[in-house]
Amino acid sequence: MNHPYARLTARFARMATINEAASMLGWDAAAMMPAGGGAARGDQLAVLAGLAHEQLTAPVVADELAAAEAEAGGLDGWNQANLRLMRHAHLRADAIPADLVEAAARANSACEKVWREARAKADFALVRDNLAEVLRLVREQAAALSPALGLSPYDALMDGYQRGIGAADVAPVFTAYEAFLQDALPRAEAIQAARPAPRRPEGPFPADKQEALCRRMSARAGLESEHSRLDRSAHPFCGGTPTDVRITTRYDERDFSQSLMGVMHETGHALYERGLPAAYARQPVGEAAGMAAHESQSLIIEMQACRSNPYLGFMAGQLAEAFGADDAYDESNLAGLLRRVQRGFIRVDADEMTYPAHVILRFRLEQALVSGDLGVADLPGAWNDGMQSLLGVTPPDDAKGCLQDIHWYDGAVGYFPSYTLGAMAAAQLMAAARRAVPCIDLALAEGDLAPLLGWLRAKVHSQGSRLGFNDLLLAATGKRLDPSDFTAHLTARYLG
Amino acid sequence: MNHPYARLTARFARMATINEAASMLGWDAAAMMPAGGGAARGDQLAVLAGLAHEQLTAPVVADELAAAEAEAGGLDGWNQANLRLMRHAHLRADAIPADLVEAAARANSACEKVWREARAKADFALVRDNLAEVLRLVREQAAALSPALGLSPYDALMDGYQRGIGAADVAPVFTAYEAFLQDALPRAEAIQAARPAPRRPEGPFPADKQEALCRRMSARAGLESEHSRLDRSAHPFCGGTPTDVRITTRYDERDFSQSLMGVMHETGHALYERGLPAAYARQPVGEAAGMAAHESQSLIIEMQACRSNPYLGFMAGQLAEAFGADDAYDESNLAGLLRRVQRGFIRVDADEMTYPAHVILRFRLEQALVSGDLGVADLPGAWNDGMQSLLGVTPPDDAKGCLQDIHWYDGAVGYFPSYTLGAMAAAQLMAAARRAVPCIDLALAEGDLAPLLGWLRAKVHSQGSRLGFNDLLLAATGKRLDPSDFTAHLTARYLG
Repeated sequence: MNHPYARLTARFARMATINEAASMLGWDAAAMMPAGGGAARGDQLAVLAGLAHEQLTAPVVADELAAAEAEAGGLDGWNQANLRLMRHAHLRADAIPADLVEAAARANSACEKVWREARAKADFALVRDNLAEVLRLVREQAAALSPALGLSPYDALMDGYQRGIGAADVAPVFTAYEAFLQDALPRAEAIQAARPAPRRPEGPFPADKQEALCRRMSARAGLESEHSRLDRSAHPFCGGTPTDVRITTRYDERDFSQSLMGVMHETGHALYERGLPAAYARQPVGEAAGMAAHESQSLIIEMQACRSNPYLGFMAGQLAEAFGADDAYDESNLAGLLRRVQRGFIRVDADEMTYPAHVILRFRLEQALVSGDLGVADLPGAWNDGMQSLLGVTPPDDAKGCLQDIHWYDGAVGYFPSYTLGAMAAAQLMAAARRAVPCIDLALAEGDLAPLLGWLRAKVHSQGSRLGFNDLLLAATGKRLDPSDFTAHLTARYLG
Repeated sequence: MNHPYARLTARFARMATINEAASMLGWDAAAMMPAGGGAARGDQLAVLAGLAHEQLTAPVVADELAAAEAEAGGLDGWNQANLRLMRHAHLRADAIPADLVEAAARANSACEKVWREARAKADFALVRDNLAEVLRLVREQAAALSPALGLSPYDALMDGYQRGIGAADVAPVFTAYEAFLQDALPRAEAIQAARPAPRRPEGPFPADKQEALCRRMSARAGLESEHSRLDRSAHPFCGGTPTDVRITTRYDERDFSQSLMGVMHETGHALYERGLPAAYARQPVGEAAGMAAHESQSLIIEMQACRSNPYLGFMAGQLAEAFGADDAYDESNLAGLLRRVQRGFIRVDADEMTYPAHVILRFRLEQALVSGDLGVADLPGAWNDGMQSLLGVTPPDDAKGCLQDIHWYDGAVGYFPSYTLGAMAAAQLMAAARRAVPCIDLALAEGDLAPLLGWLRAKVHSQGSRLGFNDLLLAATGKRLDPSDFTAHLTARYLG
């Protein structure tokens, strides 16, 4: 333990272990905690966050990093990458003064509370000043991070969610997608309209039966019950730790598909966590490669695998077994139900073709908000104009417009692109996996994701955080982010 | 925050908040965690324990304590008591060198694992050397604590579980109880034998129905669902935090009484936590007054209130409602079922009259083990001799003898007396409460514990840790521990 790098690995392991505790308490707060425990839980999470932050910003860390970097030639590639990520984490933490961290946490927390009321009342004016303050502090943080990381202010924010890709890479990809969508969406709608409407299966679907089905399908997809739980929460998510993953969903007794597809989505996240390199557990290089990479793993399971024709054939049998025979349970009818394009106001309800439009809008607006080109007072108008331009719809009120997502109101700026980068990466990875492992679709017809999962474990999961987003794709698929696999996927699925 | 006492309260609050996080993770490990999460959870709990310990033993704490004590005259009574408890906690933590803490943790953990196997095989020899090592380190800790606290080595260990009472107080009380028991037990058995055997109600009792009944009865006893949960675990316990109490039980479908009485017991613990003074939350003085005090609160609910005749009358109706009419559900039959004396080998299965004999045995043996008067190799023989002398039975093997409890094998020496001190205190408090609040039994007949609970909140719960065990009883009942209320209770219940 006298080598500075060894001391750093111990320190980062300690920090990660504190963060594991916080992750479990976050899961508990969402899935288990009685309401009366909320105030104490907030304190517990704040203290743990403070303790983790202290580990990273202790005065000795800078010296240890410098000393370890001076001897980095003696480390292998993985440990060199780990040391670079330690430096990166330290740069980010050190760049922002403690009082700015605190001020931002307070402003975010205050804004988030007001946002809930503003959204409920569809009254943007209520939260406008809070949001302006949140954005002012986001701008301050971006300005502090920018020189430390050698990135533009907005890219410095994006980097906090996904390393290895910036706005200059994303903007042309999104512009090209917008052009694709203007052509593809009306065609997809016309094709859909020309077909008979899918039959909705008879409900109700009792929550307990849905839960048992979700558990079975998630296990069949490879998530081991020895290392995971499935519970209920208001907002589905995947939390916990790599050896103890906690996924949640909610059940609507009139519709089985929300919970089932939601659980398969979270199962994709969970499988990524399960496949991270155990040899580098609790080290930066052993973590997932970022939010876009994580979303690529949930979407490759949910959108690419589980909404594919062969898998829908398997699912039809499972549904009949769970809920009783219904002629709605056949592959082509399920395809009609579960692969429907629909222009809408709400991002989280969007299908895979229109979803990127929601993200493109937010990506453009948040850059303008950070640069100051867009004032907060002008946000609702700019939002509605953007929706009209991208999807040809105008939200009836701000609750269905710029108030719908918590992200900005909680200080999360630079996160939105990850959703669509993940969707595009999922298509790119799926195309490469199909080329490399020909039996993937045959197995999917049996509900067996093992051939796909084997390839993902080798090419993505086991790589941890060694590579940034574009380099990970390059190593796995032979090219950096290339949205043509995503548009080819959509063309085949919706315009065939 | 410049006053040293204010800095100390912030430090102790931080430590308590870390301990709250650990408590929640401990609950999760027992009630929720998949088996594969065990290793990571062990690390998380160890890191949190280390962080809490660092808060208490930071070099600056000694200076802050001295400075605060120099100005203690400016504090009110509660805060003076709090400062004394801070000093006490610091003395305990500071007296034991870090390497001894670590060595003991390792030895306890190793011994506990071997103990599980030894108990399963009823083979004491397997764990003998581990236990000897555990006890050697316990003795070292006792020797380090003794001069720091000005207590005998054994009392210094007891003090870790219950302040304010020592072996010199306990020994004569236990000797007197032994004499009472030699007379009372055969008489109680004779009375019981002369009565018709109670009718056992028809099962099975589905776990879900038992759980719903337990939830109803616990809520009726005053435990609010806004601030508590009831879940399942292998070993029932009460954990969590004062605003978010987590109780657990297990269900045997052939017998409703284990879970129901177990839940009322844990409800007693939970109500104590709920009633602690919120103004001193996360301060030493705001905590429960110790393990014996805690046990007095579980036992006053379970044994004094819920096994009383009026409450059994109420329970009979609840049981019929939950499981269907059965002529076993009447007050006097339930009394026969739930208040049965029985000489047995196992402490946790013992009735309230013979339970103290199990504790007296352990109290005597653990003092002899700590002093060295009893060698580990001689423990099984001494145990069996003691059981014969106290209860007239000899365990058929060590699994039913000296291997039955985890405590010693996990390094917990000085804890056992708390169970019986709690039982005696429960009787003493109940007698005082009945004198002060005449309607207690009328309310119990309606399942209403509010009159009793109101008195307990005022006299015990809201007092936090301001008073040690004997002083708490003195303030609440007008006298220090007086076992005559307990023997009077047993006499009325079993010899009437």
